[in-house]
Amino acid sequence: MYKIGLVGAGNVAWHLGIALEKAGHQVINVYSRHWDRAQQLAQALLAAKPTNQLDFSNSEAEIFFIAVTDDALAEVVSKLLVPENSIIAHTSGTHALSLAQKKKTFPAVFYPLQTFTKNKPIDFQNIPICIESNHIESLDKIRTIAQSMSNYVYEINSEKRQLLHLAAIFTCNFSNFLFTIGKDILEKNEMPFELLQNLVNETVQKAFLLSPENAQTGPAKRGDNSIIQKHLSILNQYPSEWKTLYEQFSSQIYNYHKKLT
Amino acid sequence: MYKIGLVGAGNVAWHLGIALEKAGHQVINVYSRHWDRAQQLAQALLAAKPTNQLDFSNSEAEIFFIAVTDDALAEVVSKLLVPENSIIAHTSGTHALSLAQKKKTFPAVFYPLQTFTKNKPIDFQNIPICIESNHIESLDKIRTIAQSMSNYVYEINSEKRQLLHLAAIFTCNFSNFLFTIGKDILEKNEMPFELLQNLVNETVQKAFLLSPENAQTGPAKRGDNSIIQKHLSILNQYPSEWKTLYEQFSSQIYNYHKKLT
Repeated sequence: MYKIGLVGAGNVAWHLGIALEKAGHQVINVYSRHWDRAQQLAQALLAAKPTNQLDFSNSEAEIFFIAVTDDALAEVVSKLLVPENSIIAHTSGTHALSLAQKKKTFPAVFYPLQTFTKNKPIDFQNIPICIESNHIESLDKIRTIAQSMSNYVYEINSEKRQLLHLAAIFTCNFSNFLFTIGKDILEKNEMPFELLQNLVNETVQKAFLLSPENAQTGPAKRGDNSIIQKHLSILNQYPSEWKTLYEQFSSQIYNYHKKLT
Repeated sequence: MYKIGLVGAGNVAWHLGIALEKAGHQVINVYSRHWDRAQQLAQALLAAKPTNQLDFSNSEAEIFFIAVTDDALAEVVSKLLVPENSIIAHTSGTHALSLAQKKKTFPAVFYPLQTFTKNKPIDFQNIPICIESNHIESLDKIRTIAQSMSNYVYEINSEKRQLLHLAAIFTCNFSNFLFTIGKDILEKNEMPFELLQNLVNETVQKAFLLSPENAQTGPAKRGDNSIIQKHLSILNQYPSEWKTLYEQFSSQIYNYHKKLT
């Protein structure tokens, strides 16, 4: 059981704080720039004190998790005051370990690979947690905490973590925007987005079962130009950027699969 | 219970034939250009005779399902010989009802909205089936068959079906290609694609629970330029088309969500 300081009160901090306590650790400090947000999160935890000051010099916590936006991370770490020999662990997918480096403390990374929404509960057990530190004892402690929360703990260095984050953006963020376009097309024509739910689930299942390159279907892969031309002419009634995406994907899918055969 | 002729022996025909029999119908003819394929599928069914000829003039079937590629559909229908007053139902997402039109027969569309793989069993009960006919009795029969197989039967005209197919291509085909890119980035850096499985599942769940525009996250939505520039510089080591996609998505996501706020 570790005593923990939690810096941040956004989506990641909420889920992280609750999962830490569920795993038996004690979150004793919660920081947010906004007093009321710090207080709200502290209330959801067992024994946490809220604060809007970054001075934890007198805290009993030995590990401080920094769950703030990527933009704010450097400034928050520079202003942070913690006891000597504390571990400072940031939770960013993109930033290097060095961003958590500060005099007389040990840097670490604790990156849960998941998309968090405040009111949607999530089971940490199945979330991959990527950890890193250049200090062996700190890495051991961070690993112990990660393993107490999740079955999937990976030691991954900063360079790889950045690539993992990039892969996640292609796979999840960008796909979600394609879902947005699909939904817009359907709703403009009085059809519900739910029509596609079963097909999306099957697409995802197949991608992980057969691997996505083996699961690819559609007119672009078949090089079925008559269908592609028909779709491009329909797309003239929609935002021109959608047509740009359709053309890009059709030619990239065709070329990718031509190379494979 | 209907007696059915099945024209085609590819993925759609396999799943359709098996689901038809499971729902209590009798597939009595199976056609493929390739005799052995017709025979294989006929063997998987209870009482079907294989053939590589399109002459069904003496068949007892009253409904003929055409499950061939979009390219081949027109030619197959034109060569098809069936008894007078038969229903000819094509299974294409893109082609109009008129493609199933032929003298002295009734045209219909029976489009199961799903991606089929031969050796992966699939539960038809949850697959949306889109039906259409311009002949009331034929539509009734097609509806009866569809409802005997699936809980989700929709009467959708040719124009809307084409738009549904287009939406499915954005949502599923193109997303699957993004999965391919994500997997390639990971595997080139010795990380398994499975790292992303939990995140992809959660992304899909959230898209249908909250709707995709509300579920959008990531640097593009936040307008976080420092991360975007970092990713673009990493992408210089990868196929230039990936960078094109990254730039397109980042600017489209940013603009789409700027308009919403």
